[in-house]
Amino acid sequence: MTNAPETSAEDSLIARYFKPLATDPGAFALVDDAAILSSSGEDIVVTTDAVVEGVHYLATDPPDTIARKALRVNLSDLAAKGAAPAGFVLTLALRAKEDAWLRPFADALGEDANSFGCPLLGGDTVSTPGPQMISITMFGRVPKGRMVGRTGARPGDRILVTGTIGDAALGLDVLTGGAAATVLASDPAARDALVSRYRIPQPRNVLAQAVREHATAAMDVSDGLAGDLTKLCAASGVSATVDVASVPRSAAAAGLIARSAIRIETLLAGGDDYEVLCTAPPAQSDALIAAGRAAGVAVTAIGTIVPGLERPRFLDGQGQELTLKRLSYSHF
Amino acid sequence: MTNAPETSAEDSLIARYFKPLATDPGAFALVDDAAILSSSGEDIVVTTDAVVEGVHYLATDPPDTIARKALRVNLSDLAAKGAAPAGFVLTLALRAKEDAWLRPFADALGEDANSFGCPLLGGDTVSTPGPQMISITMFGRVPKGRMVGRTGARPGDRILVTGTIGDAALGLDVLTGGAAATVLASDPAARDALVSRYRIPQPRNVLAQAVREHATAAMDVSDGLAGDLTKLCAASGVSATVDVASVPRSAAAAGLIARSAIRIETLLAGGDDYEVLCTAPPAQSDALIAAGRAAGVAVTAIGTIVPGLERPRFLDGQGQELTLKRLSYSHF
Repeated sequence: MTNAPETSAEDSLIARYFKPLATDPGAFALVDDAAILSSSGEDIVVTTDAVVEGVHYLATDPPDTIARKALRVNLSDLAAKGAAPAGFVLTLALRAKEDAWLRPFADALGEDANSFGCPLLGGDTVSTPGPQMISITMFGRVPKGRMVGRTGARPGDRILVTGTIGDAALGLDVLTGGAAATVLASDPAARDALVSRYRIPQPRNVLAQAVREHATAAMDVSDGLAGDLTKLCAASGVSATVDVASVPRSAAAAGLIARSAIRIETLLAGGDDYEVLCTAPPAQSDALIAAGRAAGVAVTAIGTIVPGLERPRFLDGQGQELTLKRLSYSHF
Repeated sequence: MTNAPETSAEDSLIARYFKPLATDPGAFALVDDAAILSSSGEDIVVTTDAVVEGVHYLATDPPDTIARKALRVNLSDLAAKGAAPAGFVLTLALRAKEDAWLRPFADALGEDANSFGCPLLGGDTVSTPGPQMISITMFGRVPKGRMVGRTGARPGDRILVTGTIGDAALGLDVLTGGAAATVLASDPAARDALVSRYRIPQPRNVLAQAVREHATAAMDVSDGLAGDLTKLCAASGVSATVDVASVPRSAAAAGLIARSAIRIETLLAGGDDYEVLCTAPPAQSDALIAAGRAAGVAVTAIGTIVPGLERPRFLDGQGQELTLKRLSYSHF
C-alpha cells in the first residue's frame, strides 16, 4: 500500500527489499501476515530447509550466493519429489539492517525466484544477536497422490544420480584452506568451479516431471550420497550395491582423486551436492537418462537395488567393499 | 521405519523427539524430506513466525513454554484469518542436543499440536553456535476466497479486540526487573498471571469461524495494538478513533495504571498480546461479541473505523488525543 505508514523499521525493510519479490496474488504484496496458496485439488508438497551462517555457508560468502543457496536447497527437494514450484515463505534472522548485505541478497533471491517460477508468498524478519539464519519453507504442486517418496525402491531398480557428486564438499575444503586448496593452488579455474558448486547449488527442477513419471523413489543428495542412499534404502526396506567407479565426478574431483589428494569418501560422504538420487526399473532408467540428455543434465546409473536390509555396499573397481568411516554430514 | 539405520545423530534426534508428533499421513512419519498437504480445492492459508532466544523469549524461560509460544504465535495468525489449523513445519536451530531441553520442548509441542488439531508435517533441525531459534510455518484451511484479510475495514465498522491488551508486555517487564516487578513485589499472583501471558499466548482459534463469518478485516495483535491497528487501517485505506478507556485490560494491568506505575502506552504499544483485532459493522460486531461470550472469550468494542488516511487517533476519557511515542515493537 502506498499509503502504508511505516510503523517500524522492520516494515520498511520488508517493503524496500522483499515486496518486489511478492508477485503472486496470494502474497497480498506482503501487507497481510498470511498468504493464500490456492489449490485445484492437487497435492501441495511442503519442504523446509534452513541455512545458518558458519554452518551451511561462510560469513565471508557473498550475500547473493547465500540467497541463491537458501532458495535452491529447497528447490532441490521439490525437484526430487517430482513437484513443480509454487512459492515460498522466508524467515530471515538478521543481526542488523545493512543495505550492503540486504540489497544483493534480495536482488539475487528475486532473480532466482523468477527464473525458477517460485514467488515469495510471505515471511518473517527477526533480529538475532547470533549468526544470521535463513529458513525457507517451499511449496510445490503434484497431481494427487503422485509425489515421489522414499519408500518405492524395489530390487532390480537401477540407482541414478544427476550431475556430479562431491564437488561442493571440495569447494568448502578450498574455502577453508584444506587439502584441495593446497593441491589446486596453481589451478584457479578448478578452485573456482568447486567453490561455485558449494555456494550455488544447481537444483534439477528441469527433471522434476521425468522423475515423477519414471522414478520409484527419489530424494535429493544434501547430506552426502552414502548416507542419503542409506536412508532411501531403509525407507524402502531394501539394500543396494554401488559401483563407486561409476559415481560421476567432475574433472577437478577426478584430478584430486588421481593425485591421491583426497579420498573417495570425501566425495561419497560430503554434503551439499543437491543432486537428485533416484531409483527406477531399467527401462524407466533409460527414459530418465534420455530426459536428462535432452535437458542438458547428466543422469548416471551408479548401482542396483538388491533385497535385504543391510546398509548399501560401495564396491571399488575390483569388486571389493569400501569401508566408509562416515556416511554423511551430521549437525550433532 | 523401525529398520531405519540412524545414519546421524540428527536423524536420531528427529526420530526420538519429533516422529511421535507427526501423526498426519501427509507427514510420512518424517522419513521423507517433504510432506503432503492434501487439498479438496479450498484455500490453504500460510503463515510463518519465528521466535529467537533473547528476543522473543528469554534464555531462562522453561522449554515447554518456549514450545507453546512458538506454536501459538502461528495459531494466532490462523485464528485472525478465520482459518482452521491444518498442520505445521518446524525449523529448529539448536546449539546442542540436550535431552533436558528437548524432552519437555517436544512433549509440550506435541500436547499443543494435539489440542489445537495442528499436526507436525515436517521440518529441519540445524546446529547453530548462536541463540536458539524456532521457526514455524503453519497451514490452515478456509473455503475458497474466504480468508479474512486486512483490507476490508470500512467507515462505520466497529473495532473489536479479544481478551485483554498489554499483559504480555507487563509480564516481560516483571521478568526483566522493570517497574511492574517492583510495584508487584508483594503480589506474586499478579506477577505470575502477567508472566504467564508473556510466556504462553492464548490464541483465539475457537473464534476463527465467527471471525470468518462476521469480520470485514482482521489480524492478530503481535507487535502492539496501536501499531497493528495502524497497519490494518493503512491496508484498508481508512482511519480510526479508539476510546482508550475501553481497551480491555486485566486486573493486574488496571492496578498498575491506577497506581501510575506504568503508562497506558505500555499497554497500547507492548507486543506479544496474540489477541484478535478485527472490524465489523455494528450488527456483525454484536454477533462476534455473542460468539465470544458463548466460547468464554471476551470480545470488546474499542472504537470505530472512520474515513481518512490519518493514523488512528487514541482518545482518553475526556476525548483528548494521546500522543504515543511509539506504536509497536520493532526488531530494527
